[in-house]
Amino acid sequence: MTKKILIINGPNLNLLGEREESKYGKITLEQLKNDCQTHGKSIGIEIKFEQSNIEGEIVTMIQKAKDNFQGIIINAAAYTHTSVAILDALLAVKLPTIEVHITNIYNREDFREKSLISKAVNGIICGFGVNGYIMALDSIKKIITK
Amino acid sequence: MTKKILIINGPNLNLLGEREESKYGKITLEQLKNDCQTHGKSIGIEIKFEQSNIEGEIVTMIQKAKDNFQGIIINAAAYTHTSVAILDALLAVKLPTIEVHITNIYNREDFREKSLISKAVNGIICGFGVNGYIMALDSIKKIITK
Amino acid sequence: MTKKILIINGPNLNLLGEREESKYGKITLEQLKNDCQTHGKSIGIEIKFEQSNIEGEIVTMIQKAKDNFQGIIINAAAYTHTSVAILDALLAVKLPTIEVHITNIYNREDFREKSLISKAVNGIICGFGVNGYIMALDSIKKIITK
Amino acid sequence: MTKKILIINGPNLNLLGEREESKYGKITLEQLKNDCQTHGKSIGIEIKFEQSNIEGEIVTMIQKAKDNFQGIIINAAAYTHTSVAILDALLAVKLPTIEVHITNIYNREDFREKSLISKAVNGIICGFGVNGYIMALDSIKKIITK
Amino acid sequence: MTKKILIINGPNLNLLGEREESKYGKITLEQLKNDCQTHGKSIGIEIKFEQSNIEGEIVTMIQKAKDNFQGIIINAAAYTHTSVAILDALLAVKLPTIEVHITNIYNREDFREKSLISKAVNGIICGFGVNGYIMALDSIKKIITK
Amino acid sequence: MTKKILIINGPNLNLLGEREESKYGKITLEQLKNDCQTHGKSIGIEIKFEQSNIEGEIVTMIQKAKDNFQGIIINAAAYTHTSVAILDALLAVKLPTIEVHITNIYNREDFREKSLISKAVNGIICGFGVNGYIMALDSIKKIITK
Amino acid sequence: MTKKILIINGPNLNLLGEREESKYGKITLEQLKNDCQTHGKSIGIEIKFEQSNIEGEIVTMIQKAKDNFQGIIINAAAYTHTSVAILDALLAVKLPTIEVHITNIYNREDFREKSLISKAVNGIICGFGVNGYIMALDSIKKIITK
Amino acid sequence: MTKKILIINGPNLNLLGEREESKYGKITLEQLKNDCQTHGKSIGIEIKFEQSNIEGEIVTMIQKAKDNFQGIIINAAAYTHTSVAILDALLAVKLPTIEVHITNIYNREDFREKSLISKAVNGIICGFGVNGYIMALDSIKKIITK
Amino acid sequence: MTKKILIINGPNLNLLGEREESKYGKITLEQLKNDCQTHGKSIGIEIKFEQSNIEGEIVTMIQKAKDNFQGIIINAAAYTHTSVAILDALLAVKLPTIEVHITNIYNREDFREKSLISKAVNGIICGFGVNGYIMALDSIKKIITK
Amino acid sequence: MTKKILIINGPNLNLLGEREESKYGKITLEQLKNDCQTHGKSIGIEIKFEQSNIEGEIVTMIQKAKDNFQGIIINAAAYTHTSVAILDALLAVKLPTIEVHITNIYNREDFREKSLISKAVNGIICGFGVNGYIMALDSIKKIITK
Amino acid sequence: MTKKILIINGPNLNLLGEREESKYGKITLEQLKNDCQTHGKSIGIEIKFEQSNIEGEIVTMIQKAKDNFQGIIINAAAYTHTSVAILDALLAVKLPTIEVHITNIYNREDFREKSLISKAVNGIICGFGVNGYIMALDSIKKIITK
Amino acid sequence: MTKKILIINGPNLNLLGEREESKYGKITLEQLKNDCQTHGKSIGIEIKFEQSNIEGEIVTMIQKAKDNFQGIIINAAAYTHTSVAILDALLAVKLPTIEVHITNIYNREDFREKSLISKAVNGIICGFGVNGYIMALDSIKKIITK
Repeated sequence: MTKKILIINGPNLNLLGEREESKYGKITLEQLKNDCQTHGKSIGIEIKFEQSNIEGEIVTMIQKAKDNFQGIIINAAAYTHTSVAILDALLAVKLPTIEVHITNIYNREDFREKSLISKAVNGIICGFGVNGYIMALDSIKKIITK
Repeated sequence: MTKKILIINGPNLNLLGEREESKYGKITLEQLKNDCQTHGKSIGIEIKFEQSNIEGEIVTMIQKAKDNFQGIIINAAAYTHTSVAILDALLAVKLPTIEVHITNIYNREDFREKSLISKAVNGIICGFGVNGYIMALDSIKKIITK
Repeated sequence: MTKKILIINGPNLNLLGEREESKYGKITLEQLKNDCQTHGKSIGIEIKFEQSNIEGEIVTMIQKAKDNFQGIIINAAAYTHTSVAILDALLAVKLPTIEVHITNIYNREDFREKSLISKAVNGIICGFGVNGYIMALDSIKKIITK
Repeated sequence: MTKKILIINGPNLNLLGEREESKYGKITLEQLKNDCQTHGKSIGIEIKFEQSNIEGEIVTMIQKAKDNFQGIIINAAAYTHTSVAILDALLAVKLPTIEVHITNIYNREDFREKSLISKAVNGIICGFGVNGYIMALDSIKKIITK
Repeated sequence: MTKKILIINGPNLNLLGEREESKYGKITLEQLKNDCQTHGKSIGIEIKFEQSNIEGEIVTMIQKAKDNFQGIIINAAAYTHTSVAILDALLAVKLPTIEVHITNIYNREDFREKSLISKAVNGIICGFGVNGYIMALDSIKKIITK
Repeated sequence: MTKKILIINGPNLNLLGEREESKYGKITLEQLKNDCQTHGKSIGIEIKFEQSNIEGEIVTMIQKAKDNFQGIIINAAAYTHTSVAILDALLAVKLPTIEVHITNIYNREDFREKSLISKAVNGIICGFGVNGYIMALDSIKKIITK
Repeated sequence: MTKKILIINGPNLNLLGEREESKYGKITLEQLKNDCQTHGKSIGIEIKFEQSNIEGEIVTMIQKAKDNFQGIIINAAAYTHTSVAILDALLAVKLPTIEVHITNIYNREDFREKSLISKAVNGIICGFGVNGYIMALDSIKKIITK
Repeated sequence: MTKKILIINGPNLNLLGEREESKYGKITLEQLKNDCQTHGKSIGIEIKFEQSNIEGEIVTMIQKAKDNFQGIIINAAAYTHTSVAILDALLAVKLPTIEVHITNIYNREDFREKSLISKAVNGIICGFGVNGYIMALDSIKKIITK
Repeated sequence: MTKKILIINGPNLNLLGEREESKYGKITLEQLKNDCQTHGKSIGIEIKFEQSNIEGEIVTMIQKAKDNFQGIIINAAAYTHTSVAILDALLAVKLPTIEVHITNIYNREDFREKSLISKAVNGIICGFGVNGYIMALDSIKKIITK
Repeated sequence: MTKKILIINGPNLNLLGEREESKYGKITLEQLKNDCQTHGKSIGIEIKFEQSNIEGEIVTMIQKAKDNFQGIIINAAAYTHTSVAILDALLAVKLPTIEVHITNIYNREDFREKSLISKAVNGIICGFGVNGYIMALDSIKKIITK
Repeated sequence: MTKKILIINGPNLNLLGEREESKYGKITLEQLKNDCQTHGKSIGIEIKFEQSNIEGEIVTMIQKAKDNFQGIIINAAAYTHTSVAILDALLAVKLPTIEVHITNIYNREDFREKSLISKAVNGIICGFGVNGYIMALDSIKKIITK
Repeated sequence: MTKKILIINGPNLNLLGEREESKYGKITLEQLKNDCQTHGKSIGIEIKFEQSNIEGEIVTMIQKAKDNFQGIIINAAAYTHTSVAILDALLAVKLPTIEVHITNIYNREDFREKSLISKAVNGIICGFGVNGYIMALDSIKKIITK
């Protein structure tokens, strides 16, 4: 059966390609979505690609993933560093989860060094630009087909 | 006149009974709602029972309670530890308020030991499972009928 | 068989009703003892009600509870924040235990925000005045008759 | 061409005039809106005046300001102290921005002393009551017409 | 009767216009003085404009203001972050006081983020360049003529 | 009527004159008691002079002072730095109280720099050797005869 | 002349053999006392073996050891981490002293990692179960017969 | 030969009697000077009584005391908490020194709890109002005539 | 021209497959080396695979990579958290570098949460078991062939 | 079969007997080796006695102990406080291990109070001079022959 | 043209040679001045040698150096650790500057370990006694004649 | 007799002249060695010039210096901030020692501000580029020929 993966993008990622190109690159969220879906298709994974600026909506997305998806890829952006609620949602649904960051968050301001949600994920990929999403897809496939 | 109490449940409590049973028990939020309303009826208290994953919605619920309820029972879940906005809402409406936690939050991870909202509540009940809600109903009745 | 509960009161609680009425209320420790015993009788619980200003005596009380009581209700007062010895005693006897505080300790000086003994109790009730003792009796009955 | 300024009000500011009058004054948010628009008109500035209790909605407001406004005045209230997401939104849109606080936040509880968003604003005005909004309007006009 | 305002400038502000132009602008302290006095005249405020590099002299200026001025505008520069003595002087004279900073001190080195004297002022204006002085004059007039 | 003062000595002060003479001097606790009583007589103060190694006994001494003494002089020794219970007892009885230390505790190990009980005393005398007790007697007389 | 050693056991050690066997072993305090005295006899050391739950009593035991014993072996249990009074008593009597812990306290909760009394002892033996007492006896004999 | 004592008063003490009477009392610095000199005369001590708002001037006063005075009484006020320079001056001249505070500084804001200069004084007297100066005179006489 | 990548393994990684299988898996370092070289061959990358327990040897390996390799993959193991020297070596050679961890280091002991070397790498891959090395190879190829 | 124990000495212990005699005693490492081997022989334990100044070599020694020794005695000296690599090696080989320190490290500079490796050892012996090695041999024999 | 260097000495350095000889040596500030001027002459440098106990005067000295000197040598003594104002003055004048300390400040009390002004100097020389001034003269000559 | 000085260079200093020229300059370690030896010859000092990337090797170098050299000049580079072992080696050999840093380490990342080894050196020279080595040679000659 085709595996389904939910990709969740946190606050301000809808501005991808429009802001701070030198840091985040030129690709837009729409293009990233297409890239992910194309790649997903090529490896037999169906992808739902979401974005929200609202912490609680991300919590709800994660909760709903429980019965419809086999894994989650999450770039929680700013909520990475402040959201116990997202951490709790991930702990509750217990799906295989990969945390992705476009930039190397461990080389920025101090308050971006701490990820609250890392405690609830299988693996972390950070600093590889939008390619990190593709890497995450490949590796989550490995995890869920083991 | 019948007293009205607003019971507010924070993020992920909609998963009650579905997640980590050993920690949170088997009862669902729906059943808890029924239990609260049944008990409320038996002690002459009308209950509105709400849940939201969104911090700002909880802020709005508290604000609206001001003119329609005589007291609040709140289990802010993850927002207990991070929300200055909920604290401010409680400080603004100044209704009798009881904070409830299903588990003993003082015996878990360090970041769950600090409740930001405790400064705005009358009393705290934690570690008694869902029975804590019933205890809170009984005691808030005492407070608002004094 | 009648259940027996040990209620332990820590330092300065013998002054109840005599000091800072606005904070602790007018009821004396003697009256509280009577209230607890009357309520205990009404719910079929036999109560021993103790107070001591000496940390080590409270440790001994807890130790002796092991063979004679089915549960402990403890308001360790000032020792709540400083006593590893009381924590160790509670961990050793492993009886169902409820921590009670008359005031909301999480809304006072910083050094009163931390309870060392919370890690060894089932539940915490704080901020409900002396009524917290009655709530504790009701709920410990539920726990030990489960 | 007429300059357009977005004024954003954070959580609980919809209660202005209704809560803690001694601290926040008697003026309501509706009256403040009118005052700002009247003053804006007098100095040739068109004003959109928004309020939300939801962090993510404020993020979205800031993002949308990019193409429609020449500057932002923001009183993020409680989110001032906790929101990396709002900071990131301000960093992304890079509009001239002024942070306003009705009270002197540096003379209140410790956790209100730290503003996360100050790093993304041009200037800060705090402690001048609702008059701070008028001051912010005058000064942002200076900045955007330079 | 004409209101009199004392404007106090702390250490190194005598170098204004000569140092780090990109950060502090081109205007000299002498020109700023003239601007303030011109503006003062236009709004009916008499201004005394002082500068000192010596903490204790600033303390003395504040003390002497008590009988001769209706308000103080202070840019304590480096002493903002280290002087309990200036804080105590402001607390003692209890005149309406506005704290001004030319740059956004909350966006510089960590040790500049903390203002010791903010606890003794009515309001704070920071990040508006030398225009902050004019804003302070306008707003202190409002405060002292209320 | 003759004023009565309770002088309380904390743990290890019974070793006075026997230990670390260079730091605490040669006088024994018995001699200090005599000196205090002689001096008390000369200024019309009756003195009870107590010592205990047990924190809880000191709490009880303070409690009992309420009805029998007009003031307390306390050298809590090691408990100065660790006892919330003694602080609470002093806060409860609300008698004029002077804290005495034989040595300059602010010039010793770091953990001796913090006195928990200072918050509940009128004044502190430290570093004057046993003469500090005489100074305390003279000054408490002034306080209670005002 | 026969050397005399005082062995002091702190709070909750009277429960030895009855609590948490997996951590503390099956041997009771009475048996440990016998083992120590048997071993003492075999190496020509007379032993007094004490236990108390009361901090101040342990202080007194140490003080009295001064004239009657040549060395102290102390397992202060919970007071290890909180008692400045016991530290002061050991510093005052200046007898050779060995600190013993049954478990490896440096591999437990953080608040058990700090021993306040270590600064006043010759050596520390921890993690060897009750055998640590025998090791302490052998080594204190070496120290006092040097 | 008559002993000479230098009494040094730090910043804002020249406002004594004029500010915050409830905290500092009604007596002015001039009256305090007279009281000290009268008392000095009565116990055979000549007194020089100084005040300065400037940290460096206080340093110089202390330095000059070396050859002209037998002891120093210092109330460094705000500089108590921030001045390493005054600490160094006291360490350098090595005269008997007593630190006086009119209020109980250990019962005020946190940043006033730490005295940097205590490490260089013989004794500390705090919380006795202006009477603390008289106590200091009596006790420094004892120290310098020993 | 064939690209050459240096893979560096830090202390204790030579025990791979022999220790804590549940955490690190069954594969040995030798097998991992073979897997990497096989995969490298398949994507046209030549691999040198090194391991050392000695911090300074790892520094030297990095230094020598400068002229012989186009990129570095490093799993510094324990030195991740303590080595400024390895950080400095990476900063000096400035080769594209990927940090790999077999386990999710952000979900272990606190002292393993901080990576000193992250500041000098392009990207981080952690928690994917030995597969992380393959992912690193694929992505470093992308980086060096851009 | 004869048990074999590896004794590992960390950096600077090769200077034993040559440096700071008052702290470490007069015995050299060579003599200590002989003493250990003599004692080992007398209790039927074969001993290998190693020293290295290089952290990574100590890691390697521990790794190699796995198949050749039944237990480890380690005095990691300076690396006690800084080496995660040695901790990891001990965790990996899982041999019975005793940590020895010649001096009482808990009574020296603050940075020597924390032992990183204590979490991986059975027991700790510190402050008994070189005799601690003999005590360690006796007790490790007990552990490995249990 | 002859280069001119300003040598600034901070508080208490006027006592050089008179205080704590074992720490600071026997040479007086006057002799040090002569030594510096003699050495300056020998290397073609004209020297102005200043001392002040007043922080603000040192700020003014630095400011005035801008147009009259090619470099600054500063021993800010106690102000090293507390003065943001001196730091700001050095940052403003941007002259080549060398920080000198007579003693090794990194081997004294903790609060002397932090130099606030180091961020604004070219180099630091500490622990070489008064010879550090000569070393500073030689090296600043190198810097300003490059 | 000719004095011999050991100059020790820590990790990554072998890259001198090859890395970050703007920070460390163009001179290579080989040239620096020659410069030091030439200068040494001119002042009658024989120099051994060493470099190692391995902490333990530096420890050994220091130990061996004891009998063959009259002083040490050390630039421990990255180990400056992390090595207790090097500190201990310096404390053990007790040779006159000067710490050199090419850059001003007090003006870089926070973790480079703390030198662990400063407590064991006579003096520190930092920020003077490679010329610091020449200054160190001159001053150590002064120290060892005193």
